[in-house]
Amino acid sequence: MADAIRALAIDAVEAAKSGHPGMPMGMADVATVLFTKFLKYDAADPRWADRDRFVLSAGHGSMLLYALLHLTGHAGMGTDELKRFRQLHSPAAGHPEYGEHPGIETTTGPLGQGIATAVGMALAERMMAARFGVSLVDHRTWVIASDGDLQEGVSHEAASLAGHYGLSKLCVLWDDNHISIDGDTALSFTDDTLKRFQAYGWATRRVDGHDPDALAAAMAWATRSRKPVLIACRTIIGLGAPTKAGTAGSHGSPLGAAEAAAAKEALGWTAAPFTVPDDIKAGWEAAGRRSAGTRRSWLKRLAKHPQQGEFDRAIAGRLPESWHEALAALRAKHAEEKPKLATRVSSQRALEALVPSVPEMVGGSADLTGSNNTNVKGIPAIAPGNFAGRFVHWGVREHGMAAAMNGMALHGGIIPYSGTFLVFSDYLRPAVRLAALMHTRVIHVLTHDSIGLGEDGPTHQPVEHLASFRAMPNVFVFRPADAMETAECWELAVKRADGPSLLALSRQNLPALRTDTGENRCARGGYVLAEASGPRKATLIATGSELSLAMEARAALEADGIPTAVVSLPCWEIFAAQDASYRDQVLGSALRVGIEAAIGFGWERWLGADGIFIGMGGFGASAPAEDLYRHFGITTDAVTAAVKKRVA
Amino acid sequence: MADAIRALAIDAVEAAKSGHPGMPMGMADVATVLFTKFLKYDAADPRWADRDRFVLSAGHGSMLLYALLHLTGHAGMGTDELKRFRQLHSPAAGHPEYGEHPGIETTTGPLGQGIATAVGMALAERMMAARFGVSLVDHRTWVIASDGDLQEGVSHEAASLAGHYGLSKLCVLWDDNHISIDGDTALSFTDDTLKRFQAYGWATRRVDGHDPDALAAAMAWATRSRKPVLIACRTIIGLGAPTKAGTAGSHGSPLGAAEAAAAKEALGWTAAPFTVPDDIKAGWEAAGRRSAGTRRSWLKRLAKHPQQGEFDRAIAGRLPESWHEALAALRAKHAEEKPKLATRVSSQRALEALVPSVPEMVGGSADLTGSNNTNVKGIPAIAPGNFAGRFVHWGVREHGMAAAMNGMALHGGIIPYSGTFLVFSDYLRPAVRLAALMHTRVIHVLTHDSIGLGEDGPTHQPVEHLASFRAMPNVFVFRPADAMETAECWELAVKRADGPSLLALSRQNLPALRTDTGENRCARGGYVLAEASGPRKATLIATGSELSLAMEARAALEADGIPTAVVSLPCWEIFAAQDASYRDQVLGSALRVGIEAAIGFGWERWLGADGIFIGMGGFGASAPAEDLYRHFGITTDAVTAAVKKRVA
Repeated sequence: MADAIRALAIDAVEAAKSGHPGMPMGMADVATVLFTKFLKYDAADPRWADRDRFVLSAGHGSMLLYALLHLTGHAGMGTDELKRFRQLHSPAAGHPEYGEHPGIETTTGPLGQGIATAVGMALAERMMAARFGVSLVDHRTWVIASDGDLQEGVSHEAASLAGHYGLSKLCVLWDDNHISIDGDTALSFTDDTLKRFQAYGWATRRVDGHDPDALAAAMAWATRSRKPVLIACRTIIGLGAPTKAGTAGSHGSPLGAAEAAAAKEALGWTAAPFTVPDDIKAGWEAAGRRSAGTRRSWLKRLAKHPQQGEFDRAIAGRLPESWHEALAALRAKHAEEKPKLATRVSSQRALEALVPSVPEMVGGSADLTGSNNTNVKGIPAIAPGNFAGRFVHWGVREHGMAAAMNGMALHGGIIPYSGTFLVFSDYLRPAVRLAALMHTRVIHVLTHDSIGLGEDGPTHQPVEHLASFRAMPNVFVFRPADAMETAECWELAVKRADGPSLLALSRQNLPALRTDTGENRCARGGYVLAEASGPRKATLIATGSELSLAMEARAALEADGIPTAVVSLPCWEIFAAQDASYRDQVLGSALRVGIEAAIGFGWERWLGADGIFIGMGGFGASAPAEDLYRHFGITTDAVTAAVKKRVA
Repeated sequence: MADAIRALAIDAVEAAKSGHPGMPMGMADVATVLFTKFLKYDAADPRWADRDRFVLSAGHGSMLLYALLHLTGHAGMGTDELKRFRQLHSPAAGHPEYGEHPGIETTTGPLGQGIATAVGMALAERMMAARFGVSLVDHRTWVIASDGDLQEGVSHEAASLAGHYGLSKLCVLWDDNHISIDGDTALSFTDDTLKRFQAYGWATRRVDGHDPDALAAAMAWATRSRKPVLIACRTIIGLGAPTKAGTAGSHGSPLGAAEAAAAKEALGWTAAPFTVPDDIKAGWEAAGRRSAGTRRSWLKRLAKHPQQGEFDRAIAGRLPESWHEALAALRAKHAEEKPKLATRVSSQRALEALVPSVPEMVGGSADLTGSNNTNVKGIPAIAPGNFAGRFVHWGVREHGMAAAMNGMALHGGIIPYSGTFLVFSDYLRPAVRLAALMHTRVIHVLTHDSIGLGEDGPTHQPVEHLASFRAMPNVFVFRPADAMETAECWELAVKRADGPSLLALSRQNLPALRTDTGENRCARGGYVLAEASGPRKATLIATGSELSLAMEARAALEADGIPTAVVSLPCWEIFAAQDASYRDQVLGSALRVGIEAAIGFGWERWLGADGIFIGMGGFGASAPAEDLYRHFGITTDAVTAAVKKRVA
């Protein structure tokens, strides 16, 4: 049966003239044991909520996954799809792409991401089980990982988290083939990997990756473990290929016609390309139905379960009906009280309204809980052995956190949000990119969002981070200016179901600028906060902490007889999606001045050829915040002077 | 003597009303033993090339370092500087900033970076010793690291590298204080850290961090180790503070006047603020002179050394006189042969000219050597126990690689360059940011720079990465268009001594566009590659692989009677630094069309309000490259159609 995987991988890579045959050929035996004996799934319903999750962390071996989906009888992965491996619009893309086929649990390819995402899935399983009980939530997470996955730093962060929380239903099958692209892994990689994982609190074992009985015994042992499990499966990459097996030559390019034919001969595989003999296919399809009865029993349990509606709602990602009532009340309160708060504190107020109303929201912080203000009073944190909580202490592990958050969102039933400093978003960027690509709902609370953080200096002061994420497709970057906008942006972030949202929040206090409570004005991405008293001579466009500075400058300019409008632009991506007439009306045709305590890169879009940008020209410095604003010339005076020079 | 550190840390943090007293107070004993008994340095010459390197990876404890520099008699860190801790223009910044004082070896603060940078320093020491002999190069690298440093993924990558290469002269003193910002480290961190490091091939030991004799014994043991060493120093954070010691309360904010006074009383410290009793100061200054004799002997050895000139030149970062002759010859050859090559291959040709001429260039790749084309025939790779090479197999560890490269550059004597895919620059971004901040010369070869890589799909296709790095201050992003430009950009990158350079290079072949061999035209960042045949109706502005497409479009437009110029813009940062008249002349006043197989974010700067951008609107897809260019509408036809619509 495993040879069917090998043959299909050879055929698809040959047809595409591109791809990675070595890994599917090497791991075919491991995958066969997993998919025919252990993995709980039903090919008839790949989205069954209580299925085991399977993550191919070594995403370059995508043909392994496609072959498995095909062989086990999943709809939408027929021979035609395999023949179009790596072609435009094929679900059989170069690397597994979430959304291309329901049997693909997550997008993989960037090494280390899959294993870290799987940790989030396994954590979500425990938390959902704590909420809904094991009669509804009781499944495992299986991962196939490569040497490269384990070399990446994010694997350390994720494995350490899994060990800490004791995620015993997680099993990583390591493709221990001693080969990476440069050659023998010993060129650069001589860790005692099992010992490393033991140090994290994992159970580990070695097994011959081509011995089905030994593999079955090891996987059975894994299902009994009280710790997360790493099984080192000693394999031969490209097994079957007569000259390339066991070498990097089988890793990332087609075997070539001659070697492909010889490989099939060596395997005794005589079927035509893309063809699987009926008896073998029947065996695979039976494996694909193995858990059908288990699924039917589960469906019956669900139908009778008192929390059925809530479970379905959470899994589907639909918000509770009254989810934003408390938030609406908070906005009304802000309008009345006009609180002067750091937006990170305003964010905490918003969370105090949201989190009790949205039971699937799960918060956290990368060891900056008190600084990110992501915790909510009365909402307990999870702890090893106790998953009845809704806050995660992620430790100083931004990357592992963000990748695990992706896994929680993909698992379903959880809307993860978490926190670190905006400057450290660089650490978690690869995981945000995957969230954007996968359209997953994760929310990153990124505080200390400018030189306004003061004395910690340039290592801690983001200047290019807003631009760097505005450049990333499908990411919403919110930078609210006061408590009201913060509540509005939180509403938009939670409502957004098709991609990640980042909230850039200030460390320093900011005055209230808004007292209206009707519509969510941030919902258009940008709006006129204060119109000019006459025909506009200038439009000051600002975000976040600089919006109040713009208002002060407006007051000074108006006092000097220069009609000036102020535009708030809390979310560029949403604003860009408005129709042109609205955007033109907001931005106006007068002199435009952009004000943001960050690099101006990208601001030209809103300022036009004649606009002025007032912000940072380089990295920050270590000093009290007020000194820095003065030092870098981001002041009311600088704005008024620049305007006067042009409109006088 | 250690109490002097504690008192100064208390005073400076109180004066600044901001800072981190806990770590300097907790690690004062460890640092005292290190600086008075083991560290090889001479306060009279902090840049002595054969000094031991000391890296404060836990950069938030910056007052520990400033106190040490002050006490040991370093110029430029007097009482006045300490009093201005965390104030504008003070060398005593919130976190240690490279360049602010010669005794600061590297900028730290973002956790994990320091330890990984130190691995690069230790590696550089071995490679320099292999080149110049141990009579000139024989020093250690000492690191103080926090729990947070060890939780970050980059610590895994770096520690694994150090273990692999057996960097036995590296010693990490871990501040094992059981406290992180959220509280007890056990909240999120239950690794058996010593076991983890043993798994990497390190020697480990535990010691009482407040017992000077035990510390001295442990450090002495470290100097005899044949492996890199991790010493877990069990300390009490904020030791001395009566109520805050041992708690997160002493970590990141001033103790407060009462607690500060009580702490000094508990320590028996009666001197006035910022004052150190003469006898104690004398003891410290003696420690600062401990290795003065060693340094004098070394200077004598250097003066007589046959490689003195070469050593001085390499350490100073001056290139050899004839460094670019072979490169000039290569450019002449390109002009003649007009090779059609992928720019990654052109880059390899450039390296074949440069690397033999510049002995301090050290290459590498994060396990993509054959794809990045960073290797040069005849230049051996280093290996455990053999550092007489100039290529590093970094493994699948982009982040550790880039941080270590920073360390190699900071160490002096090495110009590191290395490779990965452009899309994985996200993994190493935090280290590039530090290189930019520190003005260090590191070069990243980032291949497979667009959808032009084809079938590997959107996880491997950068679209936002050019913009994200163009937004980062002090980074030069080069995207050459053909073999000639690639050689020119390499020349500029190697010559650039004050910051990192990134080279974005194609996987796919690109035609030769340049046959001139005179000046380095990329040296102005952008230039007119082909002038219009008459008064310009349109200017096509492109980079890299899209420049040939622009030339094709120009030909079609000219044939249709539309005078069209083509501008190559290989380095925006250099072009932006040219005077406005040159820029205006190059870009012209006709319709501007930007063409780049990437997100348009930032292009508005060159295109003005009326320009057109032809490129990517979102993520890529998995298909052959030509199909993707067509699918995403980045074609000659699209360019000509867009121009005709506007100028017809």
